[in-house]
Amino acid sequence: MTGKIPLVVVVGGGFGGLAAAKALRRAPVNVLLIDRSNHHVFQPLLYQVATSVLAPGQIASPLRGLLADQENTSVMLGNVTGIDLATRHAIVDAGDREELRVGYDYLVLATGATHSYFGHDEFAHFAPGLKSLADAEFLRNHILTSFENAETEEDPERRKALMTFVLVGAGPTGVEMASAIAVMARTTLMNNFRRINPQSAHIILVDMGKRPLGTFAESLSDAVRLRLSELGVDLRLEKAVQAIDAEGAVVGDERILSKTVIWTAGVAPSPAGKWLGGNVDRAGRVRIRQDLTVQDHPEIFVIGDTASLDQDGRPLPGVAQVAMQQGGYAGKSIFRNVTGKPPLPSFRYFDKGNLAVVGKNFAVLQSGRVKMSGFFAWLIWGLIHIQFLAESSLRFSVFFQWVWTYLSGRRGDRLIIQRRENE
Amino acid sequence: MTGKIPLVVVVGGGFGGLAAAKALRRAPVNVLLIDRSNHHVFQPLLYQVATSVLAPGQIASPLRGLLADQENTSVMLGNVTGIDLATRHAIVDAGDREELRVGYDYLVLATGATHSYFGHDEFAHFAPGLKSLADAEFLRNHILTSFENAETEEDPERRKALMTFVLVGAGPTGVEMASAIAVMARTTLMNNFRRINPQSAHIILVDMGKRPLGTFAESLSDAVRLRLSELGVDLRLEKAVQAIDAEGAVVGDERILSKTVIWTAGVAPSPAGKWLGGNVDRAGRVRIRQDLTVQDHPEIFVIGDTASLDQDGRPLPGVAQVAMQQGGYAGKSIFRNVTGKPPLPSFRYFDKGNLAVVGKNFAVLQSGRVKMSGFFAWLIWGLIHIQFLAESSLRFSVFFQWVWTYLSGRRGDRLIIQRRENE
Repeated sequence: MTGKIPLVVVVGGGFGGLAAAKALRRAPVNVLLIDRSNHHVFQPLLYQVATSVLAPGQIASPLRGLLADQENTSVMLGNVTGIDLATRHAIVDAGDREELRVGYDYLVLATGATHSYFGHDEFAHFAPGLKSLADAEFLRNHILTSFENAETEEDPERRKALMTFVLVGAGPTGVEMASAIAVMARTTLMNNFRRINPQSAHIILVDMGKRPLGTFAESLSDAVRLRLSELGVDLRLEKAVQAIDAEGAVVGDERILSKTVIWTAGVAPSPAGKWLGGNVDRAGRVRIRQDLTVQDHPEIFVIGDTASLDQDGRPLPGVAQVAMQQGGYAGKSIFRNVTGKPPLPSFRYFDKGNLAVVGKNFAVLQSGRVKMSGFFAWLIWGLIHIQFLAESSLRFSVFFQWVWTYLSGRRGDRLIIQRRENE
Repeated sequence: MTGKIPLVVVVGGGFGGLAAAKALRRAPVNVLLIDRSNHHVFQPLLYQVATSVLAPGQIASPLRGLLADQENTSVMLGNVTGIDLATRHAIVDAGDREELRVGYDYLVLATGATHSYFGHDEFAHFAPGLKSLADAEFLRNHILTSFENAETEEDPERRKALMTFVLVGAGPTGVEMASAIAVMARTTLMNNFRRINPQSAHIILVDMGKRPLGTFAESLSDAVRLRLSELGVDLRLEKAVQAIDAEGAVVGDERILSKTVIWTAGVAPSPAGKWLGGNVDRAGRVRIRQDLTVQDHPEIFVIGDTASLDQDGRPLPGVAQVAMQQGGYAGKSIFRNVTGKPPLPSFRYFDKGNLAVVGKNFAVLQSGRVKMSGFFAWLIWGLIHIQFLAESSLRFSVFFQWVWTYLSGRRGDRLIIQRRENE
């Protein structure tokens, strides 16, 4: 590569890809970040957009803006559909034109995950998940429209179905979303309707496991269970969802009539594994080496939700922290490689801890041996999330919105925005 | 109507309908406000959503929230499709169920206007207008995507078409939108791209008339013309648009290649005239009497953009101020009628003046004999708009956003949000 500045192509502008690009800020390389959307989304707060607390612009920043001052880096809006390993090109579908072939010297695949319906892809149409801003806006429109339609519905059975919300999967997203819907129904919408009582909304949270937040300590699951019950969330454990259709879901052997079923259960990795020839784990994630590169391709790094790596005998979880640390590591590795420095020691994930919010004033926190639940954990959650939001302008905006929503009960963005007809 | 509380049905939650509902706050009636969307939009600022300055939630408020404390008033989400004059019912299409029939004692039709393509409805698909939040979000996505696609486009001709923006109609919306796109291209996007120079965007504003802002004084049109030229907006006057298609527009006898044509010209009233049996003016607006009611139907008021009323021999313009004053008048008239008071004197519109913004730091203002252009007019514009925004929470949010955008050049909501596939 003498004489030519190496090109690092980063695919995906989530937590992992952005961290990789940023770690290359001062490296003697050109960086090209390719993403399907023009913005980085702070995914842990998507549920607040879906429940009208925050506006989309408060949890997302344009990638171009985030990287505008990083002179060696450019951004491309496009959908990577494959990798030509032999000639080292990424194949990019850029809208209604011919596909582009982008050559790379180093490649960082940070392509994330999507929903997994565990072999029941027919559920997807009736039970949307929550992975993108479009998902969150769709759910916001849908939930608000359900209350609107309930207000004008004469038939009591159908009115009940409109006010019944089923969430499948009691992990952090399911717990946070269910409790946020409960708070919205019980406080924000309280005096807004004349015929229905939003407080009578029935929110059902289903999980196959024995407890909510199965990855947290048992004592915290117990605290969450109590809190959910205080919020009026109907928790159904050790129940499998047998069917989902336009009229509702079959949970265990019970038919629940509901116009809103939300999928907060499994995730499936991106197709990066297929692009690379298929050395994947059972979930379809790319098996990577301790330096985050792929077997036989030291120039290709795979990171975040789409990568599979064991640490101390256990697979690393698909969370933002792992992706960010791996992105930083991949960027630094490339930086050292191009400047002729010895390689980094093997990647090690440092788990700073996990948090989940349950309604207002209550969160659970687990970090090392520290386990905490209640108001103080909730304050810590707020501080950490404010801190992490990508742009300082967002940080203030979200902070003021939260204070406002907290004090007034009003929400920031309770809009149903219909789609234009010829879109 | 003895023994029964009269029901006032207000159709439309724009400036007129909202003013009518609010004027009935203390009246001994029940009020039902029906709107197709769940929010009131501050239409004069839609162009700022379309050009990424403000987020949708910053110029729109849920109608239920705005009227939550008004106990005699309820809100219905639905699309009125007709009026049964004989039995006094509004026919409402409320989604995927049977149509509803809502009886009324008084009816206020405040159903507004939509775009008019002057008999060229085939233009609509290629040249969207700007009337709703969905329109504004569509244009935001489209304009930002055009710059993105230009960045990856190899063909210089096609790149030029992606960076050419044609606006048809140099009234307030066209002038404000054209100058806002110019400011966005010249400042906000400045360092965001690596291959294209957003400053080279070509913004063309077309009008059939002899001057921009034809309803303002000639001296102000001259000031605006100069200002547009400083902003690099290419003003084409006395030119008719002959054709619009997917590749661009024919302006006069010139073919302009452009991927973005925006319709800021004519408006057409809602179908209220048809519902009422067709006593309409040439534009299709319902002819109303000096007390804003319809001939032979003293219980039906028609107000705002969908009504036709002359004052001092000239038709009242389709602006927010007229709608608001008419809404207040209609509400008060009904209040007086149900409480047995003598009717109000004929409606008279009081024109407080007109304003239009041209880019940053510059507006034109005309109020009575006062004519003003420049920075001071722009400050007045800002104060008035902040003042008018419906909810106090919006007021602060917009104020901070404006200050932030003004100082930093950054915009609030530069997101391309793709729609979900199964929507």
